[in-house]
Amino acid sequence: MSAASRVYCALVHHPVRDRAGATVTTAVTNLDVHDIARSARTYGLRRYYVVTPIEAQHVLVQRIIEHWTTGAGRKRIPERHVALALCESLPTLELAIADVERREGMRPQLWATAARSGVDRPVTRFDEGRGHLASADHPVLIVFGTGHGLADSVLQVADVLLEPIVGAGDYNHLSVRAAAAIVLDRLLGAGRDPAASH
Amino acid sequence: MSAASRVYCALVHHPVRDRAGATVTTAVTNLDVHDIARSARTYGLRRYYVVTPIEAQHVLVQRIIEHWTTGAGRKRIPERHVALALCESLPTLELAIADVERREGMRPQLWATAARSGVDRPVTRFDEGRGHLASADHPVLIVFGTGHGLADSVLQVADVLLEPIVGAGDYNHLSVRAAAAIVLDRLLGAGRDPAASH
Repeated sequence: MSAASRVYCALVHHPVRDRAGATVTTAVTNLDVHDIARSARTYGLRRYYVVTPIEAQHVLVQRIIEHWTTGAGRKRIPERHVALALCESLPTLELAIADVERREGMRPQLWATAARSGVDRPVTRFDEGRGHLASADHPVLIVFGTGHGLADSVLQVADVLLEPIVGAGDYNHLSVRAAAAIVLDRLLGAGRDPAASH
Repeated sequence: MSAASRVYCALVHHPVRDRAGATVTTAVTNLDVHDIARSARTYGLRRYYVVTPIEAQHVLVQRIIEHWTTGAGRKRIPERHVALALCESLPTLELAIADVERREGMRPQLWATAARSGVDRPVTRFDEGRGHLASADHPVLIVFGTGHGLADSVLQVADVLLEPIVGAGDYNHLSVRAAAAIVLDRLLGAGRDPAASH
């Protein structure tokens, strides 16, 4: 079983930071559900959890998933159901971890991403993370934060904290949709290794 | 002047393909304007053109830009105006090329991206493109297509056709927001070269 087939991701809406650093709950964005499901499918992830404690948002996520997997959307854009079928919403990150453990028979490593540096712990470079995934004997759950990023309480319990994405300068206000795509490509994309690109 | 400071991008809504391969015009998606502007800013691009022939869509794009650059949004999320300030809408790709030429005193190379292979011309690998950008003595305009991708008429006039993004298998139905982020990261991201990542 390849490493990629044991990678999962979660998009966390609580606990995340607001601009001032306070812990808040963000609202689910429709396109986050789509885009990250499609990226997760493209990079061979096994499951994509939308984590929110708000009950009404589970209904929203479920409606989006159903539209594309069994509803009118499936007819119009059939390849999308393959992506959306990976997705489910859960009220807490702990339940996402438990779901991976149930499926894999083993607790996943928690890999967190953070746009800000300055978190008081060492970070793992993407090339190291990539090498690790290629030979990992355990499942991995990659956690993305909405708002202004994952709360410290998540970063502190993560087994791996990935380095921030660096573009061409100091500005790194990527959307979480873009950041998730880049993280998955850096860790799992075939185009990154010259030897594997053809 | 670094290569990255002479890179531009365009998001094309016409001419693009629909599911059946016919040439159509797609509608502008609000989040495409935001997300790709933020990615363009993160990777040091100089300008981001939203190309659409529909007059009413220029009003929409202008309203989004103004909201974040001079309107209420600037106060709430100040870093976003730095990204949105890169963006403008133009009716044709030719006008985007002309705008780059006016700014740079030199016609840009046109680099196109395509999710599908099978276009009857050689493709350039991302690592080759990355090497080329690092030493280019001309501006480059990277062109992304909405819908089901750029029409053949655009692919045929492109100076460079980048290879499709390969994830972990055959599925590559990425959103254009995710694909654009990955393309910019593969061509310009600092994290890609182990030597440059710290």
